[in-house]
Amino acid sequence: MRIRGQNYRTLWELPEANGIEVIDQRHLPHRFVTAALRTPADVAEAIRDMWVRGAPLIGAVAGYGLHLAARLAPDSRVPAAVAEAFELLAATRPTAVNLRWALRFVADRARDARTPDEVRQRLLDAARQVVGDELERSRRIGEHGLRLIRDVAARKGEVNVLTHCNAGWLACVDYGTATAPVYAAHEAGVPIHVWVAETRPRNQGAALTAFELGEHGVRHTVVADNAGGHLMQRGSVDLVIVGADRVAANGDTANKIGTYLKALAARDTGVPFYVALPSSTIDRAVPDGTAIPIEERSPDEVRYLDGLGPTGPARVLVVPAGSPARNPAFDVTPARLVTGFITEDGVFSSDELRTGAAGR
Amino acid sequence: MRIRGQNYRTLWELPEANGIEVIDQRHLPHRFVTAALRTPADVAEAIRDMWVRGAPLIGAVAGYGLHLAARLAPDSRVPAAVAEAFELLAATRPTAVNLRWALRFVADRARDARTPDEVRQRLLDAARQVVGDELERSRRIGEHGLRLIRDVAARKGEVNVLTHCNAGWLACVDYGTATAPVYAAHEAGVPIHVWVAETRPRNQGAALTAFELGEHGVRHTVVADNAGGHLMQRGSVDLVIVGADRVAANGDTANKIGTYLKALAARDTGVPFYVALPSSTIDRAVPDGTAIPIEERSPDEVRYLDGLGPTGPARVLVVPAGSPARNPAFDVTPARLVTGFITEDGVFSSDELRTGAAGR
Repeated sequence: MRIRGQNYRTLWELPEANGIEVIDQRHLPHRFVTAALRTPADVAEAIRDMWVRGAPLIGAVAGYGLHLAARLAPDSRVPAAVAEAFELLAATRPTAVNLRWALRFVADRARDARTPDEVRQRLLDAARQVVGDELERSRRIGEHGLRLIRDVAARKGEVNVLTHCNAGWLACVDYGTATAPVYAAHEAGVPIHVWVAETRPRNQGAALTAFELGEHGVRHTVVADNAGGHLMQRGSVDLVIVGADRVAANGDTANKIGTYLKALAARDTGVPFYVALPSSTIDRAVPDGTAIPIEERSPDEVRYLDGLGPTGPARVLVVPAGSPARNPAFDVTPARLVTGFITEDGVFSSDELRTGAAGR
Repeated sequence: MRIRGQNYRTLWELPEANGIEVIDQRHLPHRFVTAALRTPADVAEAIRDMWVRGAPLIGAVAGYGLHLAARLAPDSRVPAAVAEAFELLAATRPTAVNLRWALRFVADRARDARTPDEVRQRLLDAARQVVGDELERSRRIGEHGLRLIRDVAARKGEVNVLTHCNAGWLACVDYGTATAPVYAAHEAGVPIHVWVAETRPRNQGAALTAFELGEHGVRHTVVADNAGGHLMQRGSVDLVIVGADRVAANGDTANKIGTYLKALAARDTGVPFYVALPSSTIDRAVPDGTAIPIEERSPDEVRYLDGLGPTGPARVLVVPAGSPARNPAFDVTPARLVTGFITEDGVFSSDELRTGAAGR
């Protein structure tokens, strides 16, 4: 997608694949900064500290982490280095099932390689395949979601989509998941406007989704998370489309904290609520949402807020100095509240998900 | 209630009643600043720019505004000055029905006064009565709500209350509405803990409710607005208690934006959802929530956020410089989602409210 009129993806290889370059998303929306990652430790730091975030992008970046481990290790240490990198990377974000899936996919490709160089090459090929497959999935999610948007446009003219957090192209390699149908509609000339929920405490909606929509030229408006229900009550939302960090076998959906509240409002007001996701996000090993671990992040993400002050980036305290905070990072939206899952294979109901018609 | 160990109310008279002093709440929680209001214009500015906020406090402060208009006017101009001040003050906050109610109550008291001085004295007496009545209502709301909290404590030991925005003593003269039962429980030695939703975009929860609970010694934890549903799903909330800006005759409740989402989550998870309010907040002229005007405030309240930076108060931009925002300040929670209304006269269901058993 476009930034300042140029086409970008969220990661690209450095010359000779001796690392990758990523958009350091901590500086968005106010500064556009990229960062080179040349070691598994670089990759782990970038994931843990959220230079890169979003389930699909995390998986794509992590794959390169395994390759870099093998590349940097002496021949005799290659298998051990890859195993260590696997553990290091898998531990960075406990809720993201896609991370583990990508690591396993990449590591498995090298399992029966006969030489250290073959391991290195296979890990690189597999990491590239994760990226290519991810791109293709996002593209197809956009295609399937576009049909839902066209249906609304045929009835109403302009289509108003509400989204939460950033399941945008910045969370993927390109296109996004929740935003893929939006970009597809924009491309197809369907009149579209996006309500962007700011998504406290880390403000990924205000900082990232608003940034990427604005840079790409998609009409959008930022609202407080609290406003979503009111907008739906007043008929200002035609579709809610969100992403997912992990979907249980029954369709219960773990996504950014606050998603559940949007889903409740959508149900109460008759607004269709869709989850857009690559099917790798479906975790068939988890029967329902109660079994999904919920990452608890630092209370300081609630107590402080980052923004642009008069003289540059600034962090401000927004609670009394002595007040404690809690910061659950995800919640679980029960499958019964989800109208449909937009995957690369089509749009599925929770029932279809449960019976295995979708996902692997 | 206590601040730095001292007892305070939110407003008190200056010597000879030639004005009032209020806590300028814009500086909380990081600085404790008071401000003297000596003219109707001072009072209007304090209400409009939210030095004072909260339906009951706005009403109490506005009453003094009429008195100050009469006090400052030459004898011949007293009736006109009071009428002008009425219009000026009534226009400051369109959603707050209590404001209009208090202005009418105070103005009516002076209607058949025979001399300018009698007008002045009656307006002062009436403004004082608004304050005294408001205090007494908050105290009784606390008494009635305490019974609900004791019921939970009897079953569970510690009671976890979730609240939204600031319907605390800072929104009233003392005690608060939603917090009145909490302070009563604290006073009575009932173990209590409050989840404070930060309440974007103006952060009245994080800035005011956390401040007043902390200063008074009540255990509390600040969470993002998004976290409320998750906490209820996990059984961490026993009661939701919020305030109200206006309640329609059928029980539909206009309150700070995001209240509706909390009410939906409470219903979905079986958590009782109470609205605490003086009965003056019930507007029998409005049949249901669709008729309540919703104040739309400046988008910059969403785009910027105030906090404490390393060198003092700071305002930071939290959206891309080019992204627009919308800022509806209230939403309407349908009566069907409200377990009960805690008023100075007792606890009532929506049905009892509708049939006139509560309120006037």
